[in-house]
Amino acid sequence: MEQTEIDEMFMYEALKLACIAEKKGEVPIGAVIVKDGKIISKGYNLKETKQMAINHAEILAIKNACKKLRSWRLEDCTLYVTLEPCPMCSGAIINSRITRIVFGAFDKKAGCCGTLYNLPLDERFNHRPIVMGGILENDCGKILSNFFKNARENKGRRNVNNRIR
Amino acid sequence: MEQTEIDEMFMYEALKLACIAEKKGEVPIGAVIVKDGKIISKGYNLKETKQMAINHAEILAIKNACKKLRSWRLEDCTLYVTLEPCPMCSGAIINSRITRIVFGAFDKKAGCCGTLYNLPLDERFNHRPIVMGGILENDCGKILSNFFKNARENKGRRNVNNRIR
Repeated sequence: MEQTEIDEMFMYEALKLACIAEKKGEVPIGAVIVKDGKIISKGYNLKETKQMAINHAEILAIKNACKKLRSWRLEDCTLYVTLEPCPMCSGAIINSRITRIVFGAFDKKAGCCGTLYNLPLDERFNHRPIVMGGILENDCGKILSNFFKNARENKGRRNVNNRIR
Repeated sequence: MEQTEIDEMFMYEALKLACIAEKKGEVPIGAVIVKDGKIISKGYNLKETKQMAINHAEILAIKNACKKLRSWRLEDCTLYVTLEPCPMCSGAIINSRITRIVFGAFDKKAGCCGTLYNLPLDERFNHRPIVMGGILENDCGKILSNFFKNARENKGRRNVNNRIR
């Protein structure tokens, strides 16, 4: 398999997790962490469900991976996430020494892996993950835009402003 | 009491937590979150002890505050931390809508509240906390520099490179 095919395969797994988040009424974002060709941890957005500000998909995947490997160092790991990481998650990825970040849709509001900032490429930090964006971009973007479209249509029933990621 | 005195009082509380971290062999950083003049949560660096990349003092304080308030929104809260927040923690503070950040020592290696970046002041994000740095700067800096000095002196006994925050 070529690297692009491998990346798409794991991004589909992240998309499945985004769907689980959506069913819980969360902004649909999913993440998996891969080491030696295998998924070692998963995460999806659980901010509203748990009323926890840090519960982005990436943070939960990183927590699970640290537990699994019994180490805060996630070297030789690739994180796949359906949306470009925000400043918090970009920083967590740098702190955890993840080797490679692959994301789906670009985030013009908070993306810090190329859009607003490119934190992983900043040589002043003590670790620089490789970044690849736009893998399954259409699928990853569509699940989000559909979610927000539905949320706006249902605005009378629940407050969409509460669903800002 | 004037605001500066109040800020120093709470920073001393954060410093006490930094001391607890130090006793556990962690880089000594502590944080408290204050609402309505009262400490509602505390945190100190537990990255090594728990082998958890995200366990910075600020993240643990934010987690505790969300649990206490049963909300991811930490509006009208002030976070006091002995060291300038890194990208991950600056992002977590923005995401949790904390109103005000007060930090002690500046961090020339990873500080994102004025030193390398000033993420909280970026108008493109959907929340902009007020930032004040340099409160009890000498005390907050000294506990860190002493820690690293001791770690270098004990290098034969344990690997200081493992203690990079």
